[in-house]
Amino acid sequence: MTHADSAQLGIGMIGYAFMGMAHSQGWRNAKSFFDPKLEPRLVALSGRDRAKAEDTARRFDWQHVETDWHALIARDDVDLVDICTPGDTHAEIAIAALAAGKHVLCEKPLANSVAEAERMAEAAERARADGVQTMVGFTYRRVPALALARRLVRSGRIGRLRHVRAQYLQDWLTDPGAPYSWRLDAQRAGSGALGDIGAHVIDLTQFLTDEYITGVSATMDTFVDERPLPEGEGTGRVTVDDAAVFLGRFSGGAMATFEATRYATGRKNAIRIELNGTEGSLAFDFEDMNTLWFFDSSTSTETQGFTRILATEPTHPYLGAWWPPGHLLGYEHGFSHQAVDLLTAIADGTAAEPTFAEGLRVQRVIAAVQASAAADSRWVPVGDTESTDSTGNAHTTSEVA
Amino acid sequence: MTHADSAQLGIGMIGYAFMGMAHSQGWRNAKSFFDPKLEPRLVALSGRDRAKAEDTARRFDWQHVETDWHALIARDDVDLVDICTPGDTHAEIAIAALAAGKHVLCEKPLANSVAEAERMAEAAERARADGVQTMVGFTYRRVPALALARRLVRSGRIGRLRHVRAQYLQDWLTDPGAPYSWRLDAQRAGSGALGDIGAHVIDLTQFLTDEYITGVSATMDTFVDERPLPEGEGTGRVTVDDAAVFLGRFSGGAMATFEATRYATGRKNAIRIELNGTEGSLAFDFEDMNTLWFFDSSTSTETQGFTRILATEPTHPYLGAWWPPGHLLGYEHGFSHQAVDLLTAIADGTAAEPTFAEGLRVQRVIAAVQASAAADSRWVPVGDTESTDSTGNAHTTSEVA
Amino acid sequence: MTHADSAQLGIGMIGYAFMGMAHSQGWRNAKSFFDPKLEPRLVALSGRDRAKAEDTARRFDWQHVETDWHALIARDDVDLVDICTPGDTHAEIAIAALAAGKHVLCEKPLANSVAEAERMAEAAERARADGVQTMVGFTYRRVPALALARRLVRSGRIGRLRHVRAQYLQDWLTDPGAPYSWRLDAQRAGSGALGDIGAHVIDLTQFLTDEYITGVSATMDTFVDERPLPEGEGTGRVTVDDAAVFLGRFSGGAMATFEATRYATGRKNAIRIELNGTEGSLAFDFEDMNTLWFFDSSTSTETQGFTRILATEPTHPYLGAWWPPGHLLGYEHGFSHQAVDLLTAIADGTAAEPTFAEGLRVQRVIAAVQASAAADSRWVPVGDTESTDSTGNAHTTSEVA
Amino acid sequence: MTHADSAQLGIGMIGYAFMGMAHSQGWRNAKSFFDPKLEPRLVALSGRDRAKAEDTARRFDWQHVETDWHALIARDDVDLVDICTPGDTHAEIAIAALAAGKHVLCEKPLANSVAEAERMAEAAERARADGVQTMVGFTYRRVPALALARRLVRSGRIGRLRHVRAQYLQDWLTDPGAPYSWRLDAQRAGSGALGDIGAHVIDLTQFLTDEYITGVSATMDTFVDERPLPEGEGTGRVTVDDAAVFLGRFSGGAMATFEATRYATGRKNAIRIELNGTEGSLAFDFEDMNTLWFFDSSTSTETQGFTRILATEPTHPYLGAWWPPGHLLGYEHGFSHQAVDLLTAIADGTAAEPTFAEGLRVQRVIAAVQASAAADSRWVPVGDTESTDSTGNAHTTSEVA
Repeated sequence: MTHADSAQLGIGMIGYAFMGMAHSQGWRNAKSFFDPKLEPRLVALSGRDRAKAEDTARRFDWQHVETDWHALIARDDVDLVDICTPGDTHAEIAIAALAAGKHVLCEKPLANSVAEAERMAEAAERARADGVQTMVGFTYRRVPALALARRLVRSGRIGRLRHVRAQYLQDWLTDPGAPYSWRLDAQRAGSGALGDIGAHVIDLTQFLTDEYITGVSATMDTFVDERPLPEGEGTGRVTVDDAAVFLGRFSGGAMATFEATRYATGRKNAIRIELNGTEGSLAFDFEDMNTLWFFDSSTSTETQGFTRILATEPTHPYLGAWWPPGHLLGYEHGFSHQAVDLLTAIADGTAAEPTFAEGLRVQRVIAAVQASAAADSRWVPVGDTESTDSTGNAHTTSEVA
Repeated sequence: MTHADSAQLGIGMIGYAFMGMAHSQGWRNAKSFFDPKLEPRLVALSGRDRAKAEDTARRFDWQHVETDWHALIARDDVDLVDICTPGDTHAEIAIAALAAGKHVLCEKPLANSVAEAERMAEAAERARADGVQTMVGFTYRRVPALALARRLVRSGRIGRLRHVRAQYLQDWLTDPGAPYSWRLDAQRAGSGALGDIGAHVIDLTQFLTDEYITGVSATMDTFVDERPLPEGEGTGRVTVDDAAVFLGRFSGGAMATFEATRYATGRKNAIRIELNGTEGSLAFDFEDMNTLWFFDSSTSTETQGFTRILATEPTHPYLGAWWPPGHLLGYEHGFSHQAVDLLTAIADGTAAEPTFAEGLRVQRVIAAVQASAAADSRWVPVGDTESTDSTGNAHTTSEVA
Repeated sequence: MTHADSAQLGIGMIGYAFMGMAHSQGWRNAKSFFDPKLEPRLVALSGRDRAKAEDTARRFDWQHVETDWHALIARDDVDLVDICTPGDTHAEIAIAALAAGKHVLCEKPLANSVAEAERMAEAAERARADGVQTMVGFTYRRVPALALARRLVRSGRIGRLRHVRAQYLQDWLTDPGAPYSWRLDAQRAGSGALGDIGAHVIDLTQFLTDEYITGVSATMDTFVDERPLPEGEGTGRVTVDDAAVFLGRFSGGAMATFEATRYATGRKNAIRIELNGTEGSLAFDFEDMNTLWFFDSSTSTETQGFTRILATEPTHPYLGAWWPPGHLLGYEHGFSHQAVDLLTAIADGTAAEPTFAEGLRVQRVIAAVQASAAADSRWVPVGDTESTDSTGNAHTTSEVA
Repeated sequence: MTHADSAQLGIGMIGYAFMGMAHSQGWRNAKSFFDPKLEPRLVALSGRDRAKAEDTARRFDWQHVETDWHALIARDDVDLVDICTPGDTHAEIAIAALAAGKHVLCEKPLANSVAEAERMAEAAERARADGVQTMVGFTYRRVPALALARRLVRSGRIGRLRHVRAQYLQDWLTDPGAPYSWRLDAQRAGSGALGDIGAHVIDLTQFLTDEYITGVSATMDTFVDERPLPEGEGTGRVTVDDAAVFLGRFSGGAMATFEATRYATGRKNAIRIELNGTEGSLAFDFEDMNTLWFFDSSTSTETQGFTRILATEPTHPYLGAWWPPGHLLGYEHGFSHQAVDLLTAIADGTAAEPTFAEGLRVQRVIAAVQASAAADSRWVPVGDTESTDSTGNAHTTSEVA
């Protein structure tokens, strides 16, 4: 391990596509715009398709390319393994990387099943004793407006939580002719809208409220069962959910509605979250991601209302490193914030959040949603023991029954 | 009955407070701004508190005041009885009025139980054979932007329905010191947020989509159990729901989330409805009630987006009678539209919508929500046979079980 | 004069069309929703077209119809004359009514020239000595959100004024085939967009800021010179401005931009006003008329932003008489507020605002705009002495030169 | 010159602060996300403060640091000089760089006077004959929503232009205690709000409309004349405008209002532009920079309105290189787009827009605004011959008189 001896940290990334690009930009910007205590070095990138991996490496000046992730993990100059692959590979890679003493950043969802996530969380806990850090890539926590929302909640500005409304709305499957992909295969993706985007709002609402979801009632559906294969003839069978809706309760008693769908025509990436508390409310929509709406009951009725906070002031989270007020940030900035937060945690030895344990917690909510949907929407507590297999079929425990 | 012989229709109204004022304005404006085939005459107003009834009568030029609703119904010059009283009185008054051959407009919710609503619907159906009309006061159907939304749905502009999001959010109970009132007493009000405001979004979504809710999964809660009595000492026990959230399915298969609450801090009268279909989407918020948002998938991607339709054009529903484009309408205009629609239906002999049968349908959804909430959120079909008593306790049938 | 002896005030209205309808509703609602010290009686309506006048009278229960405004003014039972006719008739009617001892409410703009307005203001001042009141119908002052804005300005909430941005945008002349009307004839209308709608934002900005416009620099244009006559063949010559834009200064030194146009495609009735002061800002758009946006510099930067005040609270101006919070008002409510304010001023003997003197002040700004546009946009002070004839040609004084 | 012989282009940048950071990110991202025909190499950065220059160089991996810009220009490995310094240095550096055969990207405003800008444009034109390119850094042209707006205008979607409304609103000088800086010194900055931010909306409106501003009428002001020096005692004299407002005409006859101010309390970086044409309208606000509002008169009135286009589709300008729909871009992305456009122009030998000639055109509008403000707001044509000295005093020609 070299990272303790120097001011640099060698990054090894597995995956080169959409997420690989975003993470590359994040590591690079962390150095350029922040002053992290550990400077990230883009040491090696791994991908099975060498040509594509080399293309991404060239674009972001990764020093080396591997085609086998085992080789990447084995490199001495790699201190941190950044996993940007589909969910069915997370557990194996992450556990191997931790066993090799590497810090691990793993894309969400943590795994395709509670069982996998449990093994990962256990591995992370063991590694933590040796000073090794883990983090799940719930980057939306690092959108400044949402980080500000959490700060306001924690300082009591909305009082006791009563209601949560959370939606993640996309529309790229509305067209029944949209092609089949691995994201529609339960073996690869674990679940559909629920795990892919619902996971984000499950994590975000728990993060923002500093509370946990204690139980759910759910229904899920697959609107289009067969889709054309992207190349050649034939169709692929859709084995994941197209949409999931569920009710929930938070640990403080608040009531919640959740929705994750790829059929919300016209909504492209609408992460919409509203919190109502006894003293105030917050509202957010990622399609206007630099804005946070805040209602403060303690002000005079005459001038009360939702305030449109443009979260670009130097006093707002992460903003001191960027541009003057009113100069907006975009989607990819969250990856820079994630990178710098992880670098700081490693340098300081403090916990990197969200840990794998928090990722497991999200996985348990996903499993409870699947279990409720499979059981006539009956209320399912988010327990410590239930698990599902990767096809989403619930193996319910007595707690669920 | 005189209304068939003349161009006028004598109105008798029971109730003089908030709803009495709104209905008075509605009847009056129907004459002033529209050309209804039957001209409404404000014949008599009934209220137990004579002074208060006379005050409202004076303000709106009602010709007579009664203090006993039986007397009002008995008047020969009253052709239509307009019921603006709390829900526990609706059944008795409406059935009596129908028995006397009067048309009936009844405020929502139709009744405090399915059983009451069933009796009312039966009475309405019998009366209908004699040319007597009934209508339930779901006035929000008459907000021009929502009437336009229905027109677009019916002409196929959003295609097949996939998702419904419906919320009715208020915040007047957020303060635990807000006083007790009859609206918090299950005996008087039937239910709380669910029946008072949830009923509106149940009706509206069925109206807008031209589909029915086939089943629900629900949870309800009362956040503050005791509240100070408005006068003198002591507290009153809150026996209704403060908030209700539920999942639903529409007859065409669409998935829905519903929420009705009086604890959404900062939201004053936010009726928010979104419909996502395979070809387009619609969105509405009553706090910006002259606006309808419409997304049309059939347009070019380059210029696609939600269009902010200011529903004040002469071609929009009801608008031809009012002001030039851009001169907004307000809350009370829905009551004028309701009045003129009912007058037209009576004159033409066509069905006045929503009929008591539709009001009953809403009542059954309310009962199903209560039944599901009482049964661990289990899915409850909206059947033809289940009923609940006025306290909201479900007497479930086998269909529910 | 009977109004001093009783609690009622007899209203006589001249005009029956768009403005006549709006004023009728205003007088009627003043009685129904407010408790004015003087109750308005809708005594007589005057219009040259008897059939049309009788139709409006029937709709709003006006007791009598006249076809000659002289006869209306001569009626003993008319205490107040409400002038809803085109601008070229205002001076003659108003001066005659004042001479007859009647209170006068006159639609805007006060007159078609400064000279006329001066004679009207002089007549009003003389009548005022006898307790007779005058008011100009700048009803937008009575939109609650704008009345609230003024209250905030007067209590110092935005500090010293630096910038004013004011626009009145319509689009009904965008189509070159839109027909000719009296509004496009300088002899009848005095001016075009400038006097018809620009007058409103001139008055509103002076009202809101409690300051006066001291000078202007302007340019005006007529985009379409000829338009088809509405009936039959031929075209009419457009002799008024289609659009006017001007810079201005307020008495406290603030800089302003103004725009009035009928060619702002897509804007139906967009009265948009923004005020920036040293301590805060306000923003308003009539197309969302129940909302006032307020920025308060004195709050913490962390949660600063424009607050969307839904101006429907009981503590907001005029709202106590209407519906619960979140139940919006519409365009016509301003006419009710105007009526009740005038009734109160008459009952109390206090000044009814805006007086004819204030209407004259607006007229002088209009004249200065016309003078500047005619003089190569040169800065023209809003003086006490300049005047223009009704065609908008400036007779400039040395102050202008 | 090496750039013709290879697929790489050596970049030399002068300046390391705010703009230096933004440009560094732009060059780097051009390589990472686009496939420019010429790959930018970050060869050398020049700054008088070596420590600060080295810090920026380290953050963005610039290969060399110079402390004298002459040395940077003299480097053989530098093919393009990127000028990120204050306006008073632009002319000397740019002309020297062009003389050395380097392509030049120059921050806006092009210069501090028309005379300087003329010399620069002449030098650029001469260099162009040798295949050397120049570009002015009006990066807001490269905001995708604005590039889309231009595309819509050019394809006739708004028809003939009638109105332009353009504002650039900031508020960082609202506090009279905000410190003095070089931006408030006319010798360094040329002008205040007018040249710093007004230049952007002058350029943008000409870019978007494909028309030129032909004349203006203006007024300017300095609200706070003295400000505390940032370090130590005493105050500095503010010799530039705090705010400028002006009327304008476009070459096709449209009327325009412009405003540039640093005193718009609550507006942080509000570039707001509205275009009204005979067939449609467009509206934009940089504080919601991923959104373009479009009104299309050719659609049915029933569903007409402003469409909120989220300009993040792959078919929108520049978007194919970035993230999926709904994943927003931020302020700095414009610099990447600028870089790739310039690289493409150099590789293809096509004109890089905006050229210095266009920068000169903006400078002439600025000079005309200053001249009008100095001449009682009289209309000043934007001529080919007028000029001003760097203090903003107009040397008017007969065209101005």
